[in-house]
Amino acid sequence: MPTGEIHSASQPPSATDSSAYEDDAWIWAQIKAEARRDAESEPALASYLYSTILAHPSLERSLSFHLGNKLCSSTLLSTLLYDLFINAFASDPSLRAAAVADLRAARERDPACASYSHCLLNYKGYLAVQAQRVSNRLWQQSRRPLALALQSRIADVFAVEIHPAAKIGKGILLDHATGVVVGETAVIGNNVSILHQVTLGGTGKVSGDRHPKIGDGVLIGAGATILGNVKIGEGAKIGAGSVVLIDVPPWTTAVGNPARLVGGKEKPKKHE
Amino acid sequence: MPTGEIHSASQPPSATDSSAYEDDAWIWAQIKAEARRDAESEPALASYLYSTILAHPSLERSLSFHLGNKLCSSTLLSTLLYDLFINAFASDPSLRAAAVADLRAARERDPACASYSHCLLNYKGYLAVQAQRVSNRLWQQSRRPLALALQSRIADVFAVEIHPAAKIGKGILLDHATGVVVGETAVIGNNVSILHQVTLGGTGKVSGDRHPKIGDGVLIGAGATILGNVKIGEGAKIGAGSVVLIDVPPWTTAVGNPARLVGGKEKPKKHE
Amino acid sequence: MPTGEIHSASQPPSATDSSAYEDDAWIWAQIKAEARRDAESEPALASYLYSTILAHPSLERSLSFHLGNKLCSSTLLSTLLYDLFINAFASDPSLRAAAVADLRAARERDPACASYSHCLLNYKGYLAVQAQRVSNRLWQQSRRPLALALQSRIADVFAVEIHPAAKIGKGILLDHATGVVVGETAVIGNNVSILHQVTLGGTGKVSGDRHPKIGDGVLIGAGATILGNVKIGEGAKIGAGSVVLIDVPPWTTAVGNPARLVGGKEKPKKHE
Repeated sequence: MPTGEIHSASQPPSATDSSAYEDDAWIWAQIKAEARRDAESEPALASYLYSTILAHPSLERSLSFHLGNKLCSSTLLSTLLYDLFINAFASDPSLRAAAVADLRAARERDPACASYSHCLLNYKGYLAVQAQRVSNRLWQQSRRPLALALQSRIADVFAVEIHPAAKIGKGILLDHATGVVVGETAVIGNNVSILHQVTLGGTGKVSGDRHPKIGDGVLIGAGATILGNVKIGEGAKIGAGSVVLIDVPPWTTAVGNPARLVGGKEKPKKHE
Repeated sequence: MPTGEIHSASQPPSATDSSAYEDDAWIWAQIKAEARRDAESEPALASYLYSTILAHPSLERSLSFHLGNKLCSSTLLSTLLYDLFINAFASDPSLRAAAVADLRAARERDPACASYSHCLLNYKGYLAVQAQRVSNRLWQQSRRPLALALQSRIADVFAVEIHPAAKIGKGILLDHATGVVVGETAVIGNNVSILHQVTLGGTGKVSGDRHPKIGDGVLIGAGATILGNVKIGEGAKIGAGSVVLIDVPPWTTAVGNPARLVGGKEKPKKHE
Repeated sequence: MPTGEIHSASQPPSATDSSAYEDDAWIWAQIKAEARRDAESEPALASYLYSTILAHPSLERSLSFHLGNKLCSSTLLSTLLYDLFINAFASDPSLRAAAVADLRAARERDPACASYSHCLLNYKGYLAVQAQRVSNRLWQQSRRPLALALQSRIADVFAVEIHPAAKIGKGILLDHATGVVVGETAVIGNNVSILHQVTLGGTGKVSGDRHPKIGDGVLIGAGATILGNVKIGEGAKIGAGSVVLIDVPPWTTAVGNPARLVGGKEKPKKHE
């Protein structure tokens, strides 16, 4: 099935809370080691790696600094955004856990992902998702104008538009990411892989709950368009360029325009 | 029909000139009221809302300031662009009328549009269209290098590429907008809704008049590609992901790759 | 065949080395003459044209300055990038030859390309390809973190993502360019035209050599998705919106989702 450059999530992480915390610490230590190694081998990047990674005591700080710099504008200052991200991460530990799970997802499923720091610094899909989770928090706190301003900056800077109200799980890989659009009432499960130019949109016929619900472990190929309040079951795969207007059962593949179901099995070890 | 998150334009505005002017004043008053309310509820945005909206005496000034800031670069200064937009709005009142009609289109047709100021500040499709109309004016004045420089900045900043020579009506909704490409000899009527990743392009076989002509009230779904000097009739609907190489009669729907006609009726009250 | 706004490459350039050098000099002289003419007719652009073109002694300098300005960020300084490009062009003359061949390709094949300076200043596909060739050089020198940082900036600024390891020939036209994604092991021949939103991706099923190989003179329409280690033969044409998972023989056309072969001839003078 055509999907773009994604390997399936072979082993969903199932760590306990304390080992998860150790895992987070281990990944941050890895990122710093990678940055130190790269700064040494490439002096032209030393100052960049220092300011984005090595100067920070934690992944959350590094991410907040990097997002603040990427998303700021002449009227939305980087310091304001930096504070906003710092505070969100400090108040809601699930944001850090999700950020770590997404790093692992990129490393495991994208053969072009060279290192954790590569993803943290360079993957605009990764950065867009982290920023969206913060905008979702603002939305739930009824700070909607700020959530929408953040959505707009993400759309301008990364060409990725995810409504702040959309619910996104952990272990998400948004690969390449350009042109991804996710509507207000969409829900994305855990360990989902989404390629570039994927739309989770409405049909234009209804208001209210009008966007797709994507199950755990789903893989959506490049340029696929899924419209309406349809349900894409756990482990399903959506072919590149498909236009999907129907429910897709778990562990089933849909392809074509309009999409038809072409396969499915009880519980394949790997998407193929 | 798959289209993305757009409601159809049920009632094209038919105001007289003087009521239109009152309408414009009413919308600008609304925008200021919204900005004051948001600045009060969200102090983090107060300075942003002041500089983009509250400091300005009119919609045109606010829009010119905002576009100047968004589209400037280290070599194309924001002051130059601000002046350019201010002068265009001052010389051509139809630009303001179109900007107001587009605000109304977003508010009426996009269920995710929370307020007029939300559209003015955050919709990159809205901003790209306002800037294109100014580039079109420059093009018609034979100031082509400047028109093309403006097109290029719009393409970089919003990932929307509309040739300055393309003719665009009023009441346009360019929703999400990422990846939209509109060619030199394309014409877009009034009250048209266009989703993201839509192409109005050429076939590559001819020069001269080589791009689509889109009638009033047409709705074009996400990722649709319309190629060649074809005519999409009034009120027609083009399904998401369609590849359209043929004329589509008024009030008719086209879907698929290549697109086929699937319906049509005399004058439906609503697209559905 | 639907392709978007591209004319075919009718006469691949076949100049000898010394006439090629004269050609390069002639094109740079043209660019300066165009910039002088535009600066005179449009004083608002004079300072911009001076800093980007007229102040520079060569195409490489102008391009390096322009790319440095476009791709810099608050943490990756324009001076660092300017130096990087200057050094790459100075060390590898094939980069300049390719930059000139691409300028010619835009001028010959894109009817909307008004002048060489229009392409140099405004075509984000042109700029993305020049920057990718420098990232490819860094990749081959094992300066991978810097190559990946450059890829990331190209993706953010131009919404074009080409892996630094991808091999790209000369005489390339990347028209409009938004949303183009090219994978790590892709190879693109000479005189290839690629419209916007084209993916040369993987199927997700394999690692290693997993991306398309595009022959000389191929034309790929808007939104086409080509996946896997397939071979697109010399002079083939891929229709807009196609999803291609198979080899396409030389001088043959593929269209549809999934794509099927629809034609082919021995050696047509023009794609049509």
